[in-house]
Amino acid sequence: MKALRLRVETERREQVVLVRQQVEEALRSMGAEEGLCHLYSPHTTAAVSVNEGADPDVAGDLLRHLEGAVPWEAGYRHAEGNAAAHIKAVLVGPSVTVAVEGGRLALGTWQDVYFCEFDGPRKRTLEVRFLPG
Amino acid sequence: MKALRLRVETERREQVVLVRQQVEEALRSMGAEEGLCHLYSPHTTAAVSVNEGADPDVAGDLLRHLEGAVPWEAGYRHAEGNAAAHIKAVLVGPSVTVAVEGGRLALGTWQDVYFCEFDGPRKRTLEVRFLPG
Amino acid sequence: MKALRLRVETERREQVVLVRQQVEEALRSMGAEEGLCHLYSPHTTAAVSVNEGADPDVAGDLLRHLEGAVPWEAGYRHAEGNAAAHIKAVLVGPSVTVAVEGGRLALGTWQDVYFCEFDGPRKRTLEVRFLPG
Repeated sequence: MKALRLRVETERREQVVLVRQQVEEALRSMGAEEGLCHLYSPHTTAAVSVNEGADPDVAGDLLRHLEGAVPWEAGYRHAEGNAAAHIKAVLVGPSVTVAVEGGRLALGTWQDVYFCEFDGPRKRTLEVRFLPG
Repeated sequence: MKALRLRVETERREQVVLVRQQVEEALRSMGAEEGLCHLYSPHTTAAVSVNEGADPDVAGDLLRHLEGAVPWEAGYRHAEGNAAAHIKAVLVGPSVTVAVEGGRLALGTWQDVYFCEFDGPRKRTLEVRFLPG
Repeated sequence: MKALRLRVETERREQVVLVRQQVEEALRSMGAEEGLCHLYSPHTTAAVSVNEGADPDVAGDLLRHLEGAVPWEAGYRHAEGNAAAHIKAVLVGPSVTVAVEGGRLALGTWQDVYFCEFDGPRKRTLEVRFLPG
């Protein structure tokens, strides 16, 4: 299994960064052809998912929904003040696995990979692993 | 890695379709014995998970909860009018991986595979991949 | 692919049990070195995720958030009375896949594995599978 760590620099507290292109460059540099791509966030206040990449309002609506559902301040006990970011990271999830076909992510027509920042701005890492098969 | 695309035809805007049986037929036709089964929705307004298949009220309660938590209309900006479906798809997730033992999904006693439609009725695809190991 | 079933005994209705250490012992006993670790809950009212293990308030805040977002009683139809636990299990998810490097889980600095009980106390099982690669 080959692994590559991608840098993702975020600019706001909450942000969705579309990383399909970066991930596919990583797959190319690993010589990936057919198999599974395991995408993983080693952070506890960021997450990874897949959804629409065409209209940026979709990611914006997602972030605004999460902001309403999990407000930044709500009497949390975690002393660092970013409990909401941890909760959102669990709800969205730390990882997603996508098939690789012909060296590219086998995403649906409208899908892109979402790197979800919930406590930025920060310099983040997205771990890309390729399992041939 | 073998892949097979299953057709899932949904009949309502929100619906959980239990697809364990269809997935296991796909595994049989792929000659799968031992390994991992990667289930993936190539759609941005549908999702895949695993939960109780015995009492249909469980899936119904899930859909009603999501409807309350992520209302269809809530001032979203996404112009197509189905932002709620995208948000639910991210919350439930686009994919799940289940072990295969003796050619069958290694699910718990009460578990079935949930194909979750959030913007139907539509003709959908569920991608089934088998990684031997 | 090697598999091992871990026992997780929970003590409360809602509880996060940190299981990184138990999982790494399982990996050791399987002789795992490099590959992917598939963690799976065969239950419909428990879930698996990854998040901060250092400050127990993070897991506590998560459970309290979920309790508010998905109240135990809310006119659910599922006759067993634990519909909220099923819904939380879907939102957090039944499974997570983490890379294994040098025989250990390749988690981020602050990450631990969360076994999430939503309808305890019970004797639970966490399925650990190792796919070399």
